Amino acid sequence: MVVSGPSGTGKTTLCRKLCEEGEAIFSVSCTTRAPRPGEVDGKDYFFLTEDDFVARIGRGEFFEHANVHGRRYGTLKSYVTDNLKRGIDVLMDIDVQGAVQVRACDDALVQRCLTQVFVLPPSLDELNARLSGRGTESAEAVALRMKNAADEVEHWPRYDYALVSGSREEDYARFKSILVEQRMRVPLAV
Amino acid sequence: MVVSGPSGTGKTTLCRKLCEEGEAIFSVSCTTRAPRPGEVDGKDYFFLTEDDFVARIGRGEFFEHANVHGRRYGTLKSYVTDNLKRGIDVLMDIDVQGAVQVRACDDALVQRCLTQVFVLPPSLDELNARLSGRGTESAEAVALRMKNAADEVEHWPRYDYALVSGSREEDYARFKSILVEQRMRVPLAV
Repeated sequence: MVVSGPSGTGKTTLCRKLCEEGEAIFSVSCTTRAPRPGEVDGKDYFFLTEDDFVARIGRGEFFEHANVHGRRYGTLKSYVTDNLKRGIDVLMDIDVQGAVQVRACDDALVQRCLTQVFVLPPSLDELNARLSGRGTESAEAVALRMKNAADEVEHWPRYDYALVSGSREEDYARFKSILVEQRMRVPLAV
Repeated sequence: MVVSGPSGTGKTTLCRKLCEEGEAIFSVSCTTRAPRPGEVDGKDYFFLTEDDFVARIGRGEFFEHANVHGRRYGTLKSYVTDNLKRGIDVLMDIDVQGAVQVRACDDALVQRCLTQVFVLPPSLDELNARLSGRGTESAEAVALRMKNAADEVEHWPRYDYALVSGSREEDYARFKSILVEQRMRVPLAV
């Protein structure tokens, strides 16, 4: 399950809660940046060298990857497909560019399982109020997030589901229903 | 939403609760049997004369209809489509034969909205225990219900969703998720 949406919509909280309830696991990404204190290899990230990362790009091992100010980030196909084969749902909290790459993945299992959710703010005004209300960021940082949000929300029609954020409890009930519903689908093959 | 399944699976309770919460309405059927004390025309049933009912069959007005020991029962297409056009979800608690007729309906709006749920008992042994446990029916009546159930459950692969009954609370959460999930689907037309 790919989950995208501007920051301030609560999408990461939704993903975390689903994992805490044991309904799914978070995808563990790879990165070439150095581990921060307390970060565990294989849990927070798979820490790779630049050479290893680039070689894996060459072998087409990544589902999606990006270079952010010289540090590489990416999700291995094998990590996702190994879990799917074991019947475990995998969440990917990624931006709209990452989602474009996942959508283009030619793995049949991934395409059969892929579900894309876009979490939308009730309105951009409300998003602004939420981000400002956090009080953790400067007015400039909030303005930048708002500009990014305005660009990002244009992408919702390419997703399978649009979840317009309301109250936290309602959002979670609706988010979880996307997973629960799919588990009851009668396979087309029957 | 068409809901089928053997009696004893709690499907009627699931439908009722969804209606009580205002998420959907029950479809009101037509019948040629006489109203029982307290029954209200247009609420419990639409009470029709035999001639009227047969004329409506001739005009293809029914979604599904059946003749049970000389009394006719049926659901009008217009009742369902009028509600769907107003954005109201309609529940039909009908048997597998009725579902076959609904599936064959050529109304485009109905086909676009149609969702079929089959509520399965965890096992036939468990269903037997539940039906016997009610204590409201003779052993013969339970045996007949069990025989019907064994025939009915063969039909689940033709439905969109299979809900295997567990606890009442879990069943309801899963049942409701089928409706909730669909309301978040990004229309294919976008």
